[in-house]
Amino acid sequence: MTSFAMIEAAAARMAGHIRQTPLLHAPLLDRLAGRRVLVKAEALQITGSFKARGGWSAVSALPPGTGVLAMSSGNHAQGVAWAAAAHGIKAVILMPSDAPAVKIANTKAYGAEVVLYDRATEDRDAIAARLAAERGLALIPPFDHPQVIAGQGTVGLELAKQTASFGLGPTDVLVPCGGGGLAAGIALAVAQKAPHLRVRTVEPMGFDDAARSLASGTWQRNPSTIGTICDAITTPSPGQLTLPILLEHAGPGLTVSDAQALQAVAEAFTHLRLVAEPGGAVALAAALFTPGLGDTVICVVSGGNIDPALFTQSLQV
Amino acid sequence: MTSFAMIEAAAARMAGHIRQTPLLHAPLLDRLAGRRVLVKAEALQITGSFKARGGWSAVSALPPGTGVLAMSSGNHAQGVAWAAAAHGIKAVILMPSDAPAVKIANTKAYGAEVVLYDRATEDRDAIAARLAAERGLALIPPFDHPQVIAGQGTVGLELAKQTASFGLGPTDVLVPCGGGGLAAGIALAVAQKAPHLRVRTVEPMGFDDAARSLASGTWQRNPSTIGTICDAITTPSPGQLTLPILLEHAGPGLTVSDAQALQAVAEAFTHLRLVAEPGGAVALAAALFTPGLGDTVICVVSGGNIDPALFTQSLQV
Repeated sequence: MTSFAMIEAAAARMAGHIRQTPLLHAPLLDRLAGRRVLVKAEALQITGSFKARGGWSAVSALPPGTGVLAMSSGNHAQGVAWAAAAHGIKAVILMPSDAPAVKIANTKAYGAEVVLYDRATEDRDAIAARLAAERGLALIPPFDHPQVIAGQGTVGLELAKQTASFGLGPTDVLVPCGGGGLAAGIALAVAQKAPHLRVRTVEPMGFDDAARSLASGTWQRNPSTIGTICDAITTPSPGQLTLPILLEHAGPGLTVSDAQALQAVAEAFTHLRLVAEPGGAVALAAALFTPGLGDTVICVVSGGNIDPALFTQSLQV
Repeated sequence: MTSFAMIEAAAARMAGHIRQTPLLHAPLLDRLAGRRVLVKAEALQITGSFKARGGWSAVSALPPGTGVLAMSSGNHAQGVAWAAAAHGIKAVILMPSDAPAVKIANTKAYGAEVVLYDRATEDRDAIAARLAAERGLALIPPFDHPQVIAGQGTVGLELAKQTASFGLGPTDVLVPCGGGGLAAGIALAVAQKAPHLRVRTVEPMGFDDAARSLASGTWQRNPSTIGTICDAITTPSPGQLTLPILLEHAGPGLTVSDAQALQAVAEAFTHLRLVAEPGGAVALAAALFTPGLGDTVICVVSGGNIDPALFTQSLQV
């Protein structure tokens, strides 16, 4: 179980390696949203997403020299691959063969061995278990791991510090949610350091397992994990470790359409000069397009690894 | 004449208004360049370029309530318009009618009155002088103004602080150069605070008035200011105030092709998740593609206000 002390310890291990990302805002974006929108720009993190935090946290907590195995459609893969290379250890990454080309290429470029599998016909978990056993690798899952959650929680520590002088009242922190590692980590951190901040998960419409799980109080599943451009954040269900944390600390979940996510990508380009991927932009989309939020909203833009063709499409909407 | 004390005073007036922009780097970008490339991301500045600094510095140094007039093809326009609005004063911006649409739209959105003129047939300076006299406005030129140079120099203060722990030896700081306000300001700041850093101007090939002026020791002119995609940094000649500063403190000027600038825009997208405009990316282009630079190079990405069509073009190269 992830504790606040583990988040602080992860932050200490990250010093000098993980970037403190800026909290951006733009007058013309605020006007569009009709509220003040503060954007935690994790797309500017090393490897282009917050996943470098969890990767670094998990790798740096292992006995030195331990090789690692991760399963990921992309951002977790790059985070773990980079962290492993920086620690001088072996990384094997199991990726679906239909993952975005840029994510596969970058994972290899960081020095990892990439093993592809077919999402439709092969059993990812069985392949992972076999590889880990055969080669003596430590498994670093994308969210259900105490040190991964602790690493993602360092975003919350930074948010608490970066907004300390703002005199904020109760304020929502909108967080893109796949398995819930980032949302849970931030929720734990701000519960301790900035209890006026409340995490709310944001998901693509039709893939709202976290929102339904939060509403019902127990794990709900998505009928499918394909069929949205927000590929980075589609998981079958919230994590075993993450949902209990979210049930304790998070507010009701939000959803946005693919069109809204794509428009948020375009608005981040125009007003923040920030490259976001659709799954990474869902919280910005919610900040821009959800009625009834407060005068100030914080949102995390969690990643910016997007194929040029899709980015171009977002600019033509 | 701009002094170091004026730069520090400008920084004090900016506190809480101007963003301290991050110094980014990316492992895969370093590999591409064959050296360590540290990127000062001024495209993430309020209004999308470093010009917000000079605008704020100049406006905040005026007697309260004084309205302002600026001439600009875009980034200076937005910087002054934003700073004026934040100070509650009137801003009139004189822009060429062929300036990028996004820059004209944003300048208006910040609340400025935009007056368009035809670059080919009308005399910009005469129009500006008439407007300033008729309406009692203070002229804020884009670079030849002591407080504008002081404002841009705050980038140098930040660079000195952000690289203080790196143990750098003599290191080049590559700076996109139009009239030379940014390069001169940074040169003044680092001469005092980090004398191992040396500013070098970067310009588009064929528009290398600063490089030729630095080489010859006196003002040289471009034969034309049209015919490059780096529209943000084409000026007839270095400034009366900026060139003497650069002659004292800067190294030899560099140039890059339009194709290299456009490729740098694409690399910033892929590896830094940063939106850059071509003129703002020339120093990154030089860092990536110039043989013979040192093991570590600092470059300023000075702006990110780019029309979607041109950005799309950069991604297809």
